[in-house]
Amino acid sequence: MGHNEAVPDRNWIVEEKSFSGRYLGKSEVLMALGNGYMGIRSANEESYAGEKRNTFIAGTFNRFDENEMPELPNAADLINLDIELDGEVFDLKSGQIIFYSKSLNLKTGELTRKITWVSPGGKKYDLLFRRFVSRDNLHIIGQRVEIKAVDSDSGIRLMSGINGQMTNSGVQHFSEGEKRLFDNKYLQLVQTTTQSEIDFVFNTTHNFETDSGPAELEPLVLIGRRIIKVCYSYNLKKGERFAVEKISNIHTSRDKGNENKTLEELRSMSLAELITASAAGYSKLFQKSADIWADDWKHFDINIKGENDFDQLAVRFAIYHLTIMTPAHDNRMNIAAKGLTGEGYKGHTFWDTEIFMLPFWIYSKPEVARSLLEYRYLSLPGAHRKAKGNGYKGAMFPWESAWLEDGEVTPEWGSADVVTGKPIKIWTGFIEQHISADIAYAVWHYYSITGDQDFMDKYGYRLIVEIAVFWASRLEYNECDQKYHINDVIGPDEYKEHVNNNAYTNYMAAWTIKKAMEYYEDLSKNRPELFKTLNNEIGLDDVYKDWSDRINKIYLPKPGPDLVIPQDDTYLEKEVIDLTRYKNQEHPGMILRELSIKRVNEIQVSKQADVLLLLYLLEDKFDKNVKKANWYYYEPKTLHDSSLSLSTHCILACDLGDMDKAYDLFRQATCIDLGPNMLSSEEGIHAASLGGMWQCVVNGFGGLRTPGGKLMIDPHLPKQWNQLEFSVIWRNDRIRIATDNKTLFIKKETKNNPVIEIEVRNRKYLLKDQLNINIYDNN
Amino acid sequence: MGHNEAVPDRNWIVEEKSFSGRYLGKSEVLMALGNGYMGIRSANEESYAGEKRNTFIAGTFNRFDENEMPELPNAADLINLDIELDGEVFDLKSGQIIFYSKSLNLKTGELTRKITWVSPGGKKYDLLFRRFVSRDNLHIIGQRVEIKAVDSDSGIRLMSGINGQMTNSGVQHFSEGEKRLFDNKYLQLVQTTTQSEIDFVFNTTHNFETDSGPAELEPLVLIGRRIIKVCYSYNLKKGERFAVEKISNIHTSRDKGNENKTLEELRSMSLAELITASAAGYSKLFQKSADIWADDWKHFDINIKGENDFDQLAVRFAIYHLTIMTPAHDNRMNIAAKGLTGEGYKGHTFWDTEIFMLPFWIYSKPEVARSLLEYRYLSLPGAHRKAKGNGYKGAMFPWESAWLEDGEVTPEWGSADVVTGKPIKIWTGFIEQHISADIAYAVWHYYSITGDQDFMDKYGYRLIVEIAVFWASRLEYNECDQKYHINDVIGPDEYKEHVNNNAYTNYMAAWTIKKAMEYYEDLSKNRPELFKTLNNEIGLDDVYKDWSDRINKIYLPKPGPDLVIPQDDTYLEKEVIDLTRYKNQEHPGMILRELSIKRVNEIQVSKQADVLLLLYLLEDKFDKNVKKANWYYYEPKTLHDSSLSLSTHCILACDLGDMDKAYDLFRQATCIDLGPNMLSSEEGIHAASLGGMWQCVVNGFGGLRTPGGKLMIDPHLPKQWNQLEFSVIWRNDRIRIATDNKTLFIKKETKNNPVIEIEVRNRKYLLKDQLNINIYDNN
Repeated sequence: MGHNEAVPDRNWIVEEKSFSGRYLGKSEVLMALGNGYMGIRSANEESYAGEKRNTFIAGTFNRFDENEMPELPNAADLINLDIELDGEVFDLKSGQIIFYSKSLNLKTGELTRKITWVSPGGKKYDLLFRRFVSRDNLHIIGQRVEIKAVDSDSGIRLMSGINGQMTNSGVQHFSEGEKRLFDNKYLQLVQTTTQSEIDFVFNTTHNFETDSGPAELEPLVLIGRRIIKVCYSYNLKKGERFAVEKISNIHTSRDKGNENKTLEELRSMSLAELITASAAGYSKLFQKSADIWADDWKHFDINIKGENDFDQLAVRFAIYHLTIMTPAHDNRMNIAAKGLTGEGYKGHTFWDTEIFMLPFWIYSKPEVARSLLEYRYLSLPGAHRKAKGNGYKGAMFPWESAWLEDGEVTPEWGSADVVTGKPIKIWTGFIEQHISADIAYAVWHYYSITGDQDFMDKYGYRLIVEIAVFWASRLEYNECDQKYHINDVIGPDEYKEHVNNNAYTNYMAAWTIKKAMEYYEDLSKNRPELFKTLNNEIGLDDVYKDWSDRINKIYLPKPGPDLVIPQDDTYLEKEVIDLTRYKNQEHPGMILRELSIKRVNEIQVSKQADVLLLLYLLEDKFDKNVKKANWYYYEPKTLHDSSLSLSTHCILACDLGDMDKAYDLFRQATCIDLGPNMLSSEEGIHAASLGGMWQCVVNGFGGLRTPGGKLMIDPHLPKQWNQLEFSVIWRNDRIRIATDNKTLFIKKETKNNPVIEIEVRNRKYLLKDQLNINIYDNN
Repeated sequence: MGHNEAVPDRNWIVEEKSFSGRYLGKSEVLMALGNGYMGIRSANEESYAGEKRNTFIAGTFNRFDENEMPELPNAADLINLDIELDGEVFDLKSGQIIFYSKSLNLKTGELTRKITWVSPGGKKYDLLFRRFVSRDNLHIIGQRVEIKAVDSDSGIRLMSGINGQMTNSGVQHFSEGEKRLFDNKYLQLVQTTTQSEIDFVFNTTHNFETDSGPAELEPLVLIGRRIIKVCYSYNLKKGERFAVEKISNIHTSRDKGNENKTLEELRSMSLAELITASAAGYSKLFQKSADIWADDWKHFDINIKGENDFDQLAVRFAIYHLTIMTPAHDNRMNIAAKGLTGEGYKGHTFWDTEIFMLPFWIYSKPEVARSLLEYRYLSLPGAHRKAKGNGYKGAMFPWESAWLEDGEVTPEWGSADVVTGKPIKIWTGFIEQHISADIAYAVWHYYSITGDQDFMDKYGYRLIVEIAVFWASRLEYNECDQKYHINDVIGPDEYKEHVNNNAYTNYMAAWTIKKAMEYYEDLSKNRPELFKTLNNEIGLDDVYKDWSDRINKIYLPKPGPDLVIPQDDTYLEKEVIDLTRYKNQEHPGMILRELSIKRVNEIQVSKQADVLLLLYLLEDKFDKNVKKANWYYYEPKTLHDSSLSLSTHCILACDLGDMDKAYDLFRQATCIDLGPNMLSSEEGIHAASLGGMWQCVVNGFGGLRTPGGKLMIDPHLPKQWNQLEFSVIWRNDRIRIATDNKTLFIKKETKNNPVIEIEVRNRKYLLKDQLNINIYDNN
């Protein structure tokens, strides 16, 4: 079980074995460091054209001007450290690289570069770069650089400091800062965001080690616009190893607990922290951080034994990134669609959180999932505002969400069409409305797995009820069929804008209202106090009447004679064309380049899982034949031109027993970031895809499911895998599950419930300590 | 005379013979292109870390926020053109450079790069890059790139367009822009500055030539934040030459004549212009521009024959840059201290214009000098505001000047002292007040050489009078010596802040008042109409009374027994130390690094010419012995830690006959930008130093002077020179002067004055057509 301690790094290392000045973004993103508070792209210490030095602090949104939406500002860079060796700039584009390895250890969160380089002048150097972002103290960044002059003496010159000239693709979010040098050793830059007025305090310092022990070097201070740097020189003897440790930290006035601090307090507090951290040194700081990783991996790790080591690595890669992207420390923040690894989507939160990333957290660390849902509760005012602004009631959640009070932050207008000059309206913020249902679903999902009644009492009921109020107000009565329709929406399939009765949206809306009604009935009967409060605030009795009047009249697209559920009112009437050219190609978006969006709208082609996602989320509402019919109908028409698509199809393929297809879809999903396309991750990691990969393994191949709130396990390993082992938390108990496709081993590792009921392949089992089930026979 | 047409490029070419990725700024600045309307640093087509892609449009000041002063914003880049050859990025840091030459032809204004490059994959290419900024149509930029695959077929991919992600060291001055593609060929980006709301319209297009003639290639359009680019591909046969021409233009709503245009009109007008220009093609557009250069050089060129070709090149270099830095097209604009070649000093105008650059224009193209002085007239409101704000009267000109209405734009506070954290007050904007006298002096200087009465009537008298009013109000009566003092100023020597009675300031102030009084007397007698107008507006009678009361009581520091004029009240009492360590070293600012500013203030050391500048400007007020005594006193104490210093010392050395020293100082001045220090020009060209170089040659070695308005010539060539030839405009006539130190040849090339009186070595001559004077005898 778990990884083999004797070979600790097997399948834990993401490595780049040769340097490419052209595809810097790939390792910057794939090997990004972070802890949910901050995320730093793994740009190199030395500078290259085309690099992206991004440092994002969760929740620190700022707006450049009224025409741009708030975004996470790219904070000052602390990572840069330029090296001059005997008068020559250390630059991997010049000279000769004898050995090169840049790697991220997913187990410890350490980034390492190991290089043997011969300078253009012919001098040979060994360089070792190490770096981490602390999980122990969320504010700390550690770097260590070791340089050895292999074959001759060499003068070293380092230039390093704090660079606030960073922008978001040219957009500057910070005022000029105040720069300070304390004790001739500690650098500080203080900057404030231009509109949201968040103070950032950056501190950094350098310590040196030579073969004769710690060394004190005299800094030459360099001040520039938004920059403070120091320059250090040292004469290195042939064969001597020189090390510099750069320890930095970042604090902001937005950090929880800093609300009442003055800027002066924030500055001195953060400086004191840095001085202490610097005294501890890289090794100790790193070890503390690695210990937290080790703790997490004990629980998070998924063990896959099979013919492709890559699968094991990919799932760890997903878990690593899910961990570093999540602001678990602060319920006023949520996960960005690109994590904290790129400017893409401006750091905004989408439904990606609820439907794709949240399950990992529900099953792995439910308190984090709770915090993410509390964020939605805290942003209810914006949801009320959006509902009201659109003529509806209750909570209509923003399609894109930033800071709590911001409300809807989807840009209303995209760039003008370059040919016609007409501004392109971005419709998602107006009509991609399913997100409200997705949030209601996630609340229920979290509750059904955790049983966290405290959460429901404080936040959950209210969220679901308010969303149900929205949906009831959103319904449009149609005289023809005497049903309530939901017209003019975008469903999950974003190739189809302005559709009526998108199946996913209608079913999920109806589900939300139904769920709210159940809770009404339950609370009014069993929780009179809570019921009274909610009733007073929301007028539950009135809305319940509304719900009851409408719930059975909501139009839910039914499967036709061929069992296919129409994705919307017109999808099935559209032209069917041969999609071979666009299916499974390297750039799935090609269809939009070759055909107009208007033409794409006229044919039966989907960007991503839509009906199939509905069949997965509400799996107990549809029988297997319907799933099969829709799978075979929609899969060939789905281009997976969204990273939110493959995992759903993979899971359904598992359900239908098409394991080759499932495995193929899983591998495609792993390749979205980890694959050979060197530009795919330029704008940041595909967060939803990583959440989806975890679901492929646990909910798909692992077969762990909770339809209607029942715990069920029905594993189906692909033929490439011999064994799969993972653990989940169910109602406060940690359960470890291992299978080799013949036997299923289930162990309850904690004792919060005396017994847990589990259904395995339609048979019920009672898990007390552990179970060994032969699943081969009833496969 | 002039250059030899048979060897057209002798001493006209500034060339870089090997590529350095480290010192990109040097050729970017030295080889910058421009026309006074725009200036573009000569960054390379392909991108490198550390490059600075600057495009400045004169007069388009914008303010990032209230804590920063207005600056010239770095406009969208049109120059970038990335090249991929057979899948490999063209990048001089990789592969092998077989031949490299980057050069600027000062005669034609064309930038050329000629490269033979072997890619990392081993393929050999010849590349030729050409570029110019048009002097014919100030809005046009032309580029041409030729690529030849020497030894095998090769696929070419170009990516080029308009990139508005540029910043001023991280400061973004533009809103997101609108991007358009017209006729599948013409790109347009429209952006507006964030605070001053100036619209910029950028257009660009690409044309192709292959061995089979013009080619049409299909663009792939790429849109990003503030970016529109196109990608073109072509399959190049072995030995075939492929050429792309990129023709671009820039227009802004600030341009003269655009005041009443709508943005839509500006867009269509500029697009139409681009389409016409693109049809003409690089060669024709370039030739038209080169013709203007040729016309200018006919008059501007200075011919030096001597042992060092570099001297000839250096003076042409100065004239080239003086030409491209000057917004001669618009009297609402002035010259920036770094021209249009860097962010240094934010594009602001200082006294550098009046004292250092203006003489070149007065003598070479007086209408440009007039336009520069009109700028001061147009910015009188800001000067009034500054005077009033400081409790004075009349016109107190800003130390740093930007847009007409801006008034004083010197930052009030520098960055905080990094050690103490205390903000450092920048005093120049408050107390470096001599600029107002410098402007008055320049007005008189222009008038005395041109005799431009129209200018005086419209602008000149008013400027001098208003400045004299300021000075009169500025004087402080001292009871002790019953004199008017000027206390608490900074003189030209900026090492000394808060001094009393800086000799330069006091003399120049008194001179201004005196000159105003003369004009009062003259106008009241001879120009009753004009006098009446001025009297009504300014109350001349009253101020004249004021002036009369005070003029003889202004304290003017007199030469002591040793004939040394005290630089200020305390300078001569300060400690004298051995300055050898700081004198003539590579980084003259070293003294401030080693000693504190407080300490520097306690010793007799000057940053730059101060008393000596006074002796030069008001040369007829001081006799030769005083000049000599002060030269020998102050020269050893002057570190020339300002590029405004060497030329004054050089000219005085000429006057005193120390030709070796004069030549040495001239060479030092030429090395400020053209010397081996690869970082000296990083922030932009040293405009005043270039103006000073021109003065060294014409006013120093050439000995052309106009003390009190008389034309005098007294050449002193250094022994390294055999011949010097130049031309100037005196009272509307062009006069050509040539000397070999033995004879002086003077020719009147135009016929606006029947005869011109010239004093040569204390003898008067009447110049009718030409004069040949033997000066060897009376040397």
